[in-house]
Amino acid sequence: MARILDTIDSPADLKKVPLEQLPALAQEIRDELVTVASKNGGHLGPNLGVVELCIAMHYVFDTLRDNFTFDVSHQSYVHKLLTGRRARFHTIRQGGGLNGFMNRAESPHDSFGAGHAGTALSAALGMAKARDLRGSREHIVALAGDAALTCGVTYEALNNIATTTKRMLVVLNDNKWSIDKNVGAIANYLNNIVTNENYAYLHERAARFIERIGGPKAARIFRRAEEVTKGFLLPSVIFEELGLTYYGPVDGHDIPTLIKTFEFAKLQETPVLLHVLTEKGRGYEPAMTRRKAFHGTPAFDPSTGEAASVNATPTFSQLLGDHLAKFAAADDRLVAITCAMPNGTGLERFQPKFPDRYFDVGIAEEHAVIFAAGMATKGYRPVVAIYSTFMQRAFDMVVHDVCLQNLPVVFCLDRGGISGDDGPTHHGLFDIAYLRCIPNLVHMSPKDEDEFVDMLHTAVTHPGPIAIRYPRGAAGGVPVKAQPRALTIGQAEVIRAGRQVALWFYGRMGDLAQQLADELTARGYDPAIINARFAKPLDTATLRQHGADADLVITLEDHALPGGFGSAVLEELSTLRSATPVVRVGWPDVFIEHGRESQLREEHGLTVSAVLAKAAPYLR
Amino acid sequence: MARILDTIDSPADLKKVPLEQLPALAQEIRDELVTVASKNGGHLGPNLGVVELCIAMHYVFDTLRDNFTFDVSHQSYVHKLLTGRRARFHTIRQGGGLNGFMNRAESPHDSFGAGHAGTALSAALGMAKARDLRGSREHIVALAGDAALTCGVTYEALNNIATTTKRMLVVLNDNKWSIDKNVGAIANYLNNIVTNENYAYLHERAARFIERIGGPKAARIFRRAEEVTKGFLLPSVIFEELGLTYYGPVDGHDIPTLIKTFEFAKLQETPVLLHVLTEKGRGYEPAMTRRKAFHGTPAFDPSTGEAASVNATPTFSQLLGDHLAKFAAADDRLVAITCAMPNGTGLERFQPKFPDRYFDVGIAEEHAVIFAAGMATKGYRPVVAIYSTFMQRAFDMVVHDVCLQNLPVVFCLDRGGISGDDGPTHHGLFDIAYLRCIPNLVHMSPKDEDEFVDMLHTAVTHPGPIAIRYPRGAAGGVPVKAQPRALTIGQAEVIRAGRQVALWFYGRMGDLAQQLADELTARGYDPAIINARFAKPLDTATLRQHGADADLVITLEDHALPGGFGSAVLEELSTLRSATPVVRVGWPDVFIEHGRESQLREEHGLTVSAVLAKAAPYLR
Repeated sequence: MARILDTIDSPADLKKVPLEQLPALAQEIRDELVTVASKNGGHLGPNLGVVELCIAMHYVFDTLRDNFTFDVSHQSYVHKLLTGRRARFHTIRQGGGLNGFMNRAESPHDSFGAGHAGTALSAALGMAKARDLRGSREHIVALAGDAALTCGVTYEALNNIATTTKRMLVVLNDNKWSIDKNVGAIANYLNNIVTNENYAYLHERAARFIERIGGPKAARIFRRAEEVTKGFLLPSVIFEELGLTYYGPVDGHDIPTLIKTFEFAKLQETPVLLHVLTEKGRGYEPAMTRRKAFHGTPAFDPSTGEAASVNATPTFSQLLGDHLAKFAAADDRLVAITCAMPNGTGLERFQPKFPDRYFDVGIAEEHAVIFAAGMATKGYRPVVAIYSTFMQRAFDMVVHDVCLQNLPVVFCLDRGGISGDDGPTHHGLFDIAYLRCIPNLVHMSPKDEDEFVDMLHTAVTHPGPIAIRYPRGAAGGVPVKAQPRALTIGQAEVIRAGRQVALWFYGRMGDLAQQLADELTARGYDPAIINARFAKPLDTATLRQHGADADLVITLEDHALPGGFGSAVLEELSTLRSATPVVRVGWPDVFIEHGRESQLREEHGLTVSAVLAKAAPYLR
Repeated sequence: MARILDTIDSPADLKKVPLEQLPALAQEIRDELVTVASKNGGHLGPNLGVVELCIAMHYVFDTLRDNFTFDVSHQSYVHKLLTGRRARFHTIRQGGGLNGFMNRAESPHDSFGAGHAGTALSAALGMAKARDLRGSREHIVALAGDAALTCGVTYEALNNIATTTKRMLVVLNDNKWSIDKNVGAIANYLNNIVTNENYAYLHERAARFIERIGGPKAARIFRRAEEVTKGFLLPSVIFEELGLTYYGPVDGHDIPTLIKTFEFAKLQETPVLLHVLTEKGRGYEPAMTRRKAFHGTPAFDPSTGEAASVNATPTFSQLLGDHLAKFAAADDRLVAITCAMPNGTGLERFQPKFPDRYFDVGIAEEHAVIFAAGMATKGYRPVVAIYSTFMQRAFDMVVHDVCLQNLPVVFCLDRGGISGDDGPTHHGLFDIAYLRCIPNLVHMSPKDEDEFVDMLHTAVTHPGPIAIRYPRGAAGGVPVKAQPRALTIGQAEVIRAGRQVALWFYGRMGDLAQQLADELTARGYDPAIINARFAKPLDTATLRQHGADADLVITLEDHALPGGFGSAVLEELSTLRSATPVVRVGWPDVFIEHGRESQLREEHGLTVSAVLAKAAPYLR
């Protein structure tokens, strides 16, 4: 039988589907989500949870006129399916295909791109205010999960909404994701609203009770009380106190109710927060029972939910969790901090061993870094594990709270470099540039797994701030030796001594360096290979020997070129008064799209042939 | 008569002062504050407001054992006077003297340094957790103003406190500063608590009333209601819902009550939020009537409160306010956004002319930038004016929300460069490095006031993200021409053609460039002077002519050397395959202390003689 989904080329088509057929459409969408995610991987759980919600939103609103902002926007697959991208949906997260997040360049229905959390309300408020100023009447809807409420910028927006606009709808998609992780007071607060059946009962009962037995005097006092406290017996005092009208909680899988509620919300001339309850992974058994695994999943067998292939090589993240736990057993001062990423950072492997010394602070990178600084003042050695791209959130805290005070905080920058399928919001291509300018901070990156553990060991005993940058996934699967070795801060490793051409690589670019060396050797050169280890401080002595005295330096980094590792080498050579030319290899000064890493390297010149072409003018 | 203050060399001495003499001590401290601030300038108003509060805190707690964190810490003067720095207090904010903020290097009584807002609660929580882990019993007290509650990271901390520790005191110093600025819902919320006399009355009255007339049944229902809603009839539901026990509001100028309250708070085994009401500028008439002027003041005549000397030359900030208003009159799309700095950024001059197109979002840089991005998607041209050092707070939003989407947002980076008296927390020495790595973003800096207005004009018509960086205060007082001129993006200005030595300066370093050129000319050289205008994109054509072909390039910037303007020049020369040596002049890779700018330049080698010495090896 033909699918209803196949008749929908735009939200206008959706609006023609009779109400009673929408549940069937929801099922078709779920099947499509599971089919495609089982091949491409992706954020399956969140999308299964918002199928009815997105159908209802598009049934009521018109995204060529109205604007949706989705927080993080990993839950935008259903939206993409309903807004003219059905035919290309099978390409999602693949090179050249659809992006896994909202993307303004991809569709006029994507009002605002995202990838990082907490931005939906602020962006929506900007749109709402722009609409107010120009005097139009479109609706602005921000969709945010409960975890977004752990994020400071969401609160900054909440603080501004009521004083800025009278018309804006915030849909709080409460799938208890933050509850699941048991992070913070706001999670408990939402849970209290949801689980306490007494609210509605009490609100009504108390009012009637007062009227009946208390007489006019009681009623008067309690009206006054209600006025004074505003939130008196209302289920959400916090949102009400912040000036939003709260409605909910509403069943997020009941399409008719959702549609009625959105129609009602459209009429309001006050900012509204609509609290919707959804179930992550809804409708696909493996995703419901294993919520964490299916939040973001690699390809899997749709019949069983088992990941298609599990890489046996431990990732850097896993090594962090395991080895930090090992070091922590011997050093009471070590504590670990994550921002809602126990799985992604590998700290879930640390947590069970040292639950008291493990802190998941929510999507709150700013707080995480200052909290770490606070602990460091009392003699602790906090290890803050944050993706390179999310560390951008706490840049000021790294400068102002940690480095200015020269406190011994260890920053583990996971996903440093190209992050592949997730695309430009998740690539970690700027951290050398934005961290290298900060006094006191050490910035290092390992060539392989074994050196990573050495660096971790070095970091936790270093008396000042220090960052380790490492890529997504694994490197070559180099085994980790039994006892880690302390590295000398600022000392590079000469892997191969040589003359004429010095290949300086940072982090995981060792393979490319080796290939280049082989090719150069074949051409009759005698190249040096230097594992820089430290972008800051750079090894001046080694650079003098294998740089200032060479005919050519080639720098290799998995980072944007402006201000990166190659730039640090240029600076140092300039200080050494060396005239040795430098060919800098890294990512060009554009936002790099999503795709397989090998494909992206090919496109952007991070290959042996492209580097040699770039170096050709200097090679006789 | 000898002052009580002169007997206090440490908080231990304070504790010996009889309770009844404390008000006299408070008066002495106020006199001292006015005397010193009238000479050195500083944050007089905030400190006059916390005299009793700080006396009471030090009377009850012991800062060699207990820890205080002060938000922003511009209100730490009284604390400094009471903790052994009385004799040096007259040096505050002067080169070599006391810092104007808390500073760990300055005293063991300064547990945590600050200068940026919103960090006090997170730092205190880190300390509290460290204390819990090591099993000691000291008290941790965070002092934060009401404006800190407009800041997202404060909320991130609030969300984490109750789930992280059972013992921590947050003192909310409510001087209605955010109310004054009328920013956000939380300000209104606090005001409601304070102004509503009915709270206490109602709480007690209602409880008694229910007991009396409702009988056991009513009491039961209402106990249940109280339990369910937690905050039932309590004055602060928000803090209570977040798991802090709320006490207040308390008169912040009543020393005996404050002492009793702190003694009570010490006994609590639950995180406490103590709401204290203080009056900014208390006890000094001019500071009470002109709260904004005395928040931070230059030197003034203590008898009248009039600023000692007003510079007649308009500052860059004032030019921004005036000229943006001029442009806005002709362009409906222009809107202005500040983060609680209408005065500092000059936007107070824009606000009265376009109140509907002016937004003060509170100390919420992250929200400000995303809000701007949201407006930009709807065709508006938001101008976000933020100090260079505070823009660090929104670094991720500049990358992820503005530049990745290539939205036309104008960033006005005030206080770019050395900020003088305020010191390392306020110098803006990193923005070239952290912004230059971002694709799509233009970074420019004017040589003088007239060029600043040209750049502002250029920026508001540029179709993508663009930043203008300019220093504190004025430049040479160059008059602004009647009609601004659009500059070509990426085009430098050749001020003086010349050979051999090319002096490339960025922003306000033109004077130094000119002096160097004069000196070089006197020595027989024919130097070029290039006003770079753009750090990104750099003018490749001009650099080829006046760089690649020169014998020496000297770059001059009011910025840290790593990753700065000089580094951009090195990168471009490398790309041009030029071997021209570059001498980079800027601030060294250390945190620069506070002090007069001329003095700091002298110390750190930003002078004619130091530059010539650095360049000597290249000058025959």
